[in-house]
Amino acid sequence: MSLLTCDARGVYVISVTPFTDQGEIDWDSLDRVVDFYFDKGADGLTILGMMGEAPKLTQAESRAVAERVIKRAGGKPVVVGVSAPGLAAIGELGKAVMDMGAAGCMVTTPGSLKTDPQIHGYFGQVSRTLGDGVPIVLQDFPLATGVQISDEVLGRIIDDIPQVVMLKHEDWPGLAKISKLRRAEAEGRRRISILCGNGGVFLPEEMARGADGAMTGFGFPEMLADVVRLAGDGDMDRAQDIFDAYLPLVRYEQQPGAGLAVRKYVLAKRGAIGSAALRAPGAGLTPEAIAEVERLLARQEKRLKELN
Amino acid sequence: MSLLTCDARGVYVISVTPFTDQGEIDWDSLDRVVDFYFDKGADGLTILGMMGEAPKLTQAESRAVAERVIKRAGGKPVVVGVSAPGLAAIGELGKAVMDMGAAGCMVTTPGSLKTDPQIHGYFGQVSRTLGDGVPIVLQDFPLATGVQISDEVLGRIIDDIPQVVMLKHEDWPGLAKISKLRRAEAEGRRRISILCGNGGVFLPEEMARGADGAMTGFGFPEMLADVVRLAGDGDMDRAQDIFDAYLPLVRYEQQPGAGLAVRKYVLAKRGAIGSAALRAPGAGLTPEAIAEVERLLARQEKRLKELN
Amino acid sequence: MSLLTCDARGVYVISVTPFTDQGEIDWDSLDRVVDFYFDKGADGLTILGMMGEAPKLTQAESRAVAERVIKRAGGKPVVVGVSAPGLAAIGELGKAVMDMGAAGCMVTTPGSLKTDPQIHGYFGQVSRTLGDGVPIVLQDFPLATGVQISDEVLGRIIDDIPQVVMLKHEDWPGLAKISKLRRAEAEGRRRISILCGNGGVFLPEEMARGADGAMTGFGFPEMLADVVRLAGDGDMDRAQDIFDAYLPLVRYEQQPGAGLAVRKYVLAKRGAIGSAALRAPGAGLTPEAIAEVERLLARQEKRLKELN
Amino acid sequence: MSLLTCDARGVYVISVTPFTDQGEIDWDSLDRVVDFYFDKGADGLTILGMMGEAPKLTQAESRAVAERVIKRAGGKPVVVGVSAPGLAAIGELGKAVMDMGAAGCMVTTPGSLKTDPQIHGYFGQVSRTLGDGVPIVLQDFPLATGVQISDEVLGRIIDDIPQVVMLKHEDWPGLAKISKLRRAEAEGRRRISILCGNGGVFLPEEMARGADGAMTGFGFPEMLADVVRLAGDGDMDRAQDIFDAYLPLVRYEQQPGAGLAVRKYVLAKRGAIGSAALRAPGAGLTPEAIAEVERLLARQEKRLKELN
Repeated sequence: MSLLTCDARGVYVISVTPFTDQGEIDWDSLDRVVDFYFDKGADGLTILGMMGEAPKLTQAESRAVAERVIKRAGGKPVVVGVSAPGLAAIGELGKAVMDMGAAGCMVTTPGSLKTDPQIHGYFGQVSRTLGDGVPIVLQDFPLATGVQISDEVLGRIIDDIPQVVMLKHEDWPGLAKISKLRRAEAEGRRRISILCGNGGVFLPEEMARGADGAMTGFGFPEMLADVVRLAGDGDMDRAQDIFDAYLPLVRYEQQPGAGLAVRKYVLAKRGAIGSAALRAPGAGLTPEAIAEVERLLARQEKRLKELN
Repeated sequence: MSLLTCDARGVYVISVTPFTDQGEIDWDSLDRVVDFYFDKGADGLTILGMMGEAPKLTQAESRAVAERVIKRAGGKPVVVGVSAPGLAAIGELGKAVMDMGAAGCMVTTPGSLKTDPQIHGYFGQVSRTLGDGVPIVLQDFPLATGVQISDEVLGRIIDDIPQVVMLKHEDWPGLAKISKLRRAEAEGRRRISILCGNGGVFLPEEMARGADGAMTGFGFPEMLADVVRLAGDGDMDRAQDIFDAYLPLVRYEQQPGAGLAVRKYVLAKRGAIGSAALRAPGAGLTPEAIAEVERLLARQEKRLKELN
Repeated sequence: MSLLTCDARGVYVISVTPFTDQGEIDWDSLDRVVDFYFDKGADGLTILGMMGEAPKLTQAESRAVAERVIKRAGGKPVVVGVSAPGLAAIGELGKAVMDMGAAGCMVTTPGSLKTDPQIHGYFGQVSRTLGDGVPIVLQDFPLATGVQISDEVLGRIIDDIPQVVMLKHEDWPGLAKISKLRRAEAEGRRRISILCGNGGVFLPEEMARGADGAMTGFGFPEMLADVVRLAGDGDMDRAQDIFDAYLPLVRYEQQPGAGLAVRKYVLAKRGAIGSAALRAPGAGLTPEAIAEVERLLARQEKRLKELN
Repeated sequence: MSLLTCDARGVYVISVTPFTDQGEIDWDSLDRVVDFYFDKGADGLTILGMMGEAPKLTQAESRAVAERVIKRAGGKPVVVGVSAPGLAAIGELGKAVMDMGAAGCMVTTPGSLKTDPQIHGYFGQVSRTLGDGVPIVLQDFPLATGVQISDEVLGRIIDDIPQVVMLKHEDWPGLAKISKLRRAEAEGRRRISILCGNGGVFLPEEMARGADGAMTGFGFPEMLADVVRLAGDGDMDRAQDIFDAYLPLVRYEQQPGAGLAVRKYVLAKRGAIGSAALRAPGAGLTPEAIAEVERLLARQEKRLKELN
């Protein structure tokens, strides 16, 4: 499998981890959802992220999930989230998954980082821990981590740490950050790939600002693929039409905590996974919420038909 | 002017505070935007909230704004945000605005509240500080305050503090909280009014769950009024159609920090205020952002026409 | 090895994890420091806590450290910190160390717990995950976790979850919490053991309020043992004399971040471990800091002589 | 009254604000405590800080307190805390107190500052708001504000904003920050005054590292004055002896929340203020705490006698 580079583009879906109703990993569903993502237009996958319920897995399970997905992906790129409270655990999991054929490792900022020099220093330590040649995706997600990465320190990280090849961009609001990064590149800074997260809720604007694609999850990954492809073709109006049709559900999935249950409900309904269950601690949808999702799905289908 | 009660319904728009480009309060625009909100269907106004740039005003300015708006509202209800780091300041501003004819005072949780007993105790202190008979709107906004109010402690506050007549609901995700409150009322708990915030991004679902209306801002307050009215009439499909047409802009306004600049840009463009300027520290829109807003406005207008 | 009970008393030293200068676990030093702690008066040990650099260990290392220490302790009680972001990892490590002969598992509150019902619910989940019969030490450390546990919810946890046999008390200021717990027990609530943390900085007052001992670390664990013993004998004046002699160094160790480096420097100087090195990311002492520690050590020795 | 400069030295006591048992400002006690501080060796005072219960005062009260203290100080320097959520309020209070004869304004970092450029930018805005010639004391207190100021950004602030003449140093652990600042000055950076806070708990080490004095409160301000004077004379051993005698009480005052009640209890007992009452919300000492303080006071007196 080839390694992630600064030129990566397209849609890297943040994969769910399917569980049975009893909370065990559902390996058949894991295979099935991998196939589903690629069928719906994914260019790659990202596993063991926050929406993959990674912190609820044991270390042994994390490795087994990585191995299974990388094998099933059959050569298509798989990025693995390796964030952990300590460098030793990051190094151990990172080395293991790269040996399995991962395309790169995604790392975010622990909440203990308080100053710009600490943030910069941390990614230096991470790159030395993972070792030369391991591509790093820097996940910039202040709403979840509590760490705000300034444009300035992000620039210094890009300047000093060549292993950082991609930004998983989910600063919020972060549109200006994309524009500034691209302007700095026009003035000579090394280019990195920018894939956008946040459930895709700003994807049309992000693509127009210069992003290379999406790295996020959604019950309808074909929307992400369509918007990225149409934006790449310059057809922003059609991209926005498609996006707007899905937006009521995208918005509904934005609810912190509840969002993943919505996503798994939709994936289960579409046959991509066997059960919508989250591993504890994590609740499913209430009957009221299911009714709301069903209503949004019916309206979405109707609207998509109008657009064709 | 009459006081806010547990039966309040409709749309209480969170008013902006208009400034000149030099950062002075623009009193003419303040009158004009008050008229604008009522023309577009507001039932009441809420001033000196976070989106009213209240923390940037001096105490004297806060009083002058309150006086002007209450007078201009001509008897329609005006709720005034009086949150402050200390009880003495809350009491002082609260008394002043009630004397001016405010309908009630809105108070949120200071970030120093860490436990349920502290949260419960705080609203007891606030009610004693404001004094008997002053209606309190409890603003429940964990994303901004860092304080999460459990269903349980909210119930105890409603049980113990009759002055709390309204919940400004912007817990996120908070749909279940509305359902639980309404169920508890069906089982005998005192009813309070629930008006929803969060820029209206879940307004259709919130109305269906039993909310009484909206207390939030948006460049097109007529959307809030239409959705609340249609939901009240039971026409949820039409409510959602209208909502969906505005949703791309609602979503764009959700960007923390940037959102208020978008809202003021739209209000200025519509003639409701003279300048889109925010008082420092607070930036306006970049040219890229203006182009994005203009594009969304054009699409919104087109979509609204299709719906008529 | 016997299990921890509600009647546990004495000093459970929070053990450091010794590393070589190259960052590898120093197994000989680990044996040596275990012996050292018991020689200096420890009644038990607590390993894999924050000051044991637990988050910097891989899961395999964590197990190996636990196995080595439990074996070396030769039947004396060893409590193991098993806090982790997810329940599956807590259950896995907890089961493993209990099988090795641990006396109990210590668990703290993840920062994601925001309300009293969430805190209460979490310890219910933890107790079910660890399984019947596994004694739990509830670590109450708001300064590190960001989670404040009210007296009220702590009482409910004690009422509802019999497996919680001990409070590692390091709320700050938390003297009143000890008094309230003891008063509630006098009125009929189940008694739990209270061992105090915070580097021992309030140990005399905590003992006088009814604590059962200390669960913390310090370069001179004999101070903890002396103070707890003298307080148990009712000789508070002598307890305080001893405490005061060590207080300048206790205070110096209170510096967040730097504290552990001080403690390891003292332990290395005393021959209990081979190297004062912290595993990365974690810095050693600057020359200025070493000079300060040496000065405090010299003064401490002189003052202790005066007291004898 | 002369203005604060980069050469300021000595002890600037953080003054309490005395209240009656009914919660009104006790103006006679305010005069008395001002006299008390200067009698005990203060070189200046700092008012309207966190330990002065500033957030509990109304704006009118804040001005009245400042006016009274500045007058009573009779030409000795008074620094006034002017931190507020918005720049307009900072400017308004700052201008008022400078007109009254304040020596300078103290400003801390609002919790909304997340990145180094934001912190740097904020002090630029503050200096423009206060206006040319108003000396600024930068309060660096991460434990209270949640904002960590790196050595790097602090250096940039000193380089770029000449009005910042003093650092109220209460980063924790912050000894290294003092050493780095002084080293940078030796290499050419502009010198600023460094007065230390944190209740004086590291004062001997801070003086040895190059601090110019203390800006903090304590029930026995003569300890601060003695330690700063003796350290200035190079008699570090005697300084530390004095310090150690008071340390058990200094430590006891470090309890967050409870500390101010202890300080006011001691001041009331010594006759410096009429009542130990805190304004609501703020509790007094429990009987158990009073007994603990009395015990510490008796031991302190005995120890001080031994030293003479």
